[in-house]
Amino acid sequence: MNTIRTVEASSHIGQQVRLTGWLHNVRRLGGVSFVVLRDGWGTIQAVTESEADLAPIAELSLESVIALTGTVVATPQAPGSVELHQPQIEVITPVMEPAPVPLQQKRLKAGLPTLLDHAVVANRHPERRAVFRLASGAMAGFRKTLRANHFTEIQSPKLVASATESGANVFKLEYFGGDAFLAQSPQFYKQIMVGVFARVFEVGPVFRAEPHDTTRHVNEYVSLDVEFGFIENHFTVMAMVRMVLAGIFQTLAEGYAEELELLKANLPEVPAEIPHIHFAEAQELIWQRHGVDVRGEPDLSPQDERWLGEWAQQAHGSDFLFVVGYPMGKRPFYTHPDPQNPAYSNSFDLLFRGTELITGGQRLHVYADYLAALEKANLPTEPFETYLEAFRYGMPPHGGFAIGLERLLMQLLGLPNLRLATLFPRDQKRLTP
Amino acid sequence: MNTIRTVEASSHIGQQVRLTGWLHNVRRLGGVSFVVLRDGWGTIQAVTESEADLAPIAELSLESVIALTGTVVATPQAPGSVELHQPQIEVITPVMEPAPVPLQQKRLKAGLPTLLDHAVVANRHPERRAVFRLASGAMAGFRKTLRANHFTEIQSPKLVASATESGANVFKLEYFGGDAFLAQSPQFYKQIMVGVFARVFEVGPVFRAEPHDTTRHVNEYVSLDVEFGFIENHFTVMAMVRMVLAGIFQTLAEGYAEELELLKANLPEVPAEIPHIHFAEAQELIWQRHGVDVRGEPDLSPQDERWLGEWAQQAHGSDFLFVVGYPMGKRPFYTHPDPQNPAYSNSFDLLFRGTELITGGQRLHVYADYLAALEKANLPTEPFETYLEAFRYGMPPHGGFAIGLERLLMQLLGLPNLRLATLFPRDQKRLTP
Repeated sequence: MNTIRTVEASSHIGQQVRLTGWLHNVRRLGGVSFVVLRDGWGTIQAVTESEADLAPIAELSLESVIALTGTVVATPQAPGSVELHQPQIEVITPVMEPAPVPLQQKRLKAGLPTLLDHAVVANRHPERRAVFRLASGAMAGFRKTLRANHFTEIQSPKLVASATESGANVFKLEYFGGDAFLAQSPQFYKQIMVGVFARVFEVGPVFRAEPHDTTRHVNEYVSLDVEFGFIENHFTVMAMVRMVLAGIFQTLAEGYAEELELLKANLPEVPAEIPHIHFAEAQELIWQRHGVDVRGEPDLSPQDERWLGEWAQQAHGSDFLFVVGYPMGKRPFYTHPDPQNPAYSNSFDLLFRGTELITGGQRLHVYADYLAALEKANLPTEPFETYLEAFRYGMPPHGGFAIGLERLLMQLLGLPNLRLATLFPRDQKRLTP
Repeated sequence: MNTIRTVEASSHIGQQVRLTGWLHNVRRLGGVSFVVLRDGWGTIQAVTESEADLAPIAELSLESVIALTGTVVATPQAPGSVELHQPQIEVITPVMEPAPVPLQQKRLKAGLPTLLDHAVVANRHPERRAVFRLASGAMAGFRKTLRANHFTEIQSPKLVASATESGANVFKLEYFGGDAFLAQSPQFYKQIMVGVFARVFEVGPVFRAEPHDTTRHVNEYVSLDVEFGFIENHFTVMAMVRMVLAGIFQTLAEGYAEELELLKANLPEVPAEIPHIHFAEAQELIWQRHGVDVRGEPDLSPQDERWLGEWAQQAHGSDFLFVVGYPMGKRPFYTHPDPQNPAYSNSFDLLFRGTELITGGQRLHVYADYLAALEKANLPTEPFETYLEAFRYGMPPHGGFAIGLERLLMQLLGLPNLRLATLFPRDQKRLTP
């Protein structure tokens, strides 16, 4: 008898099957007992009126690892519409004490510190597990869309020689008697690799030593990075953002319906063209609609973003809004200015339901422009020497963007804290589990 | 007119097309000039007898970024069997000085230090690029095979609280006034996540502070990690290794023929069942065949592995050989012993053409066994507290393996140094580019 997965049971009606997993719950209703097995994909319930059937687990705690054999019966009122009858339970690994979080609850009732301290076990709960299954699906959809568009995957080094990109907020480590730093992003490497593959993407960890203790910051996260050449300007990049987001949500819709339903997630529609507004117009709009004069501010506040999100919903029926043309002063030195108005940049943020999700834009590509930009930013050229080599020997107009995987999940699922979208979060006070 | 990629030209015979890329080479033969454009995927040559056609690039160096318009003509003797006629060249980004490595050479003639110092540019060479395109294909084949077998992708943290796994050879960093370490592998997290998803994989960087200066070591590499539950023993894991390798090589065969041909790579046949030999028998075999008495040694030497590789080829016609049952003393504390002979382990190495490529095995899964193993290894339990929580609350028999991406490429392509299979290698003396 082959072992099947819980989610395959409905294709085996009337057959005897074997399943393996964890003892998720045991309930007694009158003389009837329900034994729920959870495997890596779902749960299934076995029903019996015989106490003898339960004897193997009588002394054991939930989370014991078991094999369950029985006959699959279609049962419309059961969860998943199937049940196992005449169950036989075999214990694989007995557990003798109750888990630190009550995994058998439909909704896991535990405070954030408990959830995080015991994430090793808490992530087994179907709702917590669904978050990270969706993370897996988002990565798959991201890669699938880009590969179909002739992008090549790279894995760039995370150990770097200097805290070049922004200077601050970088982790330093001892490296064979000298210092090294952890990459804050693959920015320089993905640009360099445009010179090799023309179109590249990377999925990998980035490290930010930011001392922020907020619900929206962690110190290590997964960045979905894209960079490609031969663009017209940032609008070419924004069209790719749209395609990638549509690909991610399509992948989730097609392959992750159960997880989305369990989490009551509302997949957004990605419009054929995502609306955009210029940074200066956005500030003007906020002044006119809300009477708050943010004109001339160098950046948008979270409240500004929420207002713009509302406006995008009302004016365009869109969960998404590009804000384009951020002032050059707030963007990194490699940002390409707007040729018509060099105080503004060919960059963008994508707001998703009123919160920034993606940052991107066109980069400088001419060697002399880099030298001028570094001088203007009062930065020395020496730490950038190898990066600059890419531009010295020919780079096309190019640009790209980055999506924070955990932030995408947080916003998609309406989670109150980024840590709940992070498998094992790292913050100022947390390095375990 | 749409811009096409070089590799698409043969589907546009007789049409006028536009291509964009780098000026890869210019050659003159009598009155005929050949202009070679390289894009992110291949090269194409344009032919002209008119000097005027070349005027836009007359003063420029190779690697200038250009657009090339012309008519595609089938030309069996040309590289790629097509040429562009009546070319028009438009300069996108001019380059004024020759590249630090001669990219236009068919085989890139440069010493290792030059290749590595100038990797930013050297990786543009078609042969160097092909290595990293194959890396991309190997990752894709790895993921595709595992997803088809119901594995879920995870991204585990690289910042960890203690140098737990082996103690030595770990990078330490300053973390908000305390210390953190860089993960040497996702070992603990992938095991923990078997408790959540039953079957998991990860592709990500690992960090080894090993002070080795050899052709086979770098200090950061990409690890392809697999872990799954409900196994019989290490032979279940070895069957999965076989499936994953076959999937990787099939993906390369189907989608990367040009790169393989360019690098004269010889894809191995993965036998339906990869032969295996017990560690003790392997030592006996070496004694009998080569008269070197390695019996009782705790590990195999590189020479031992080469001899065993030769034997696998002669006795089984196989590029691959599993050596199983390594002595427990040389394996990490979480290794599952051989129940029949507890001095040996349920672990394996896979030799590929006489060199170790993959290490894996069955792990302990019973909580009490972990406590005993830590005590035997003289390790405290406290740094392992959250890891142990997984086993305290029910883990199935499980195991897994890890493939070093760069080592796979090195052995597949017969490269003399692991650094040549690494995009931007990190070693004791090298943190740039």
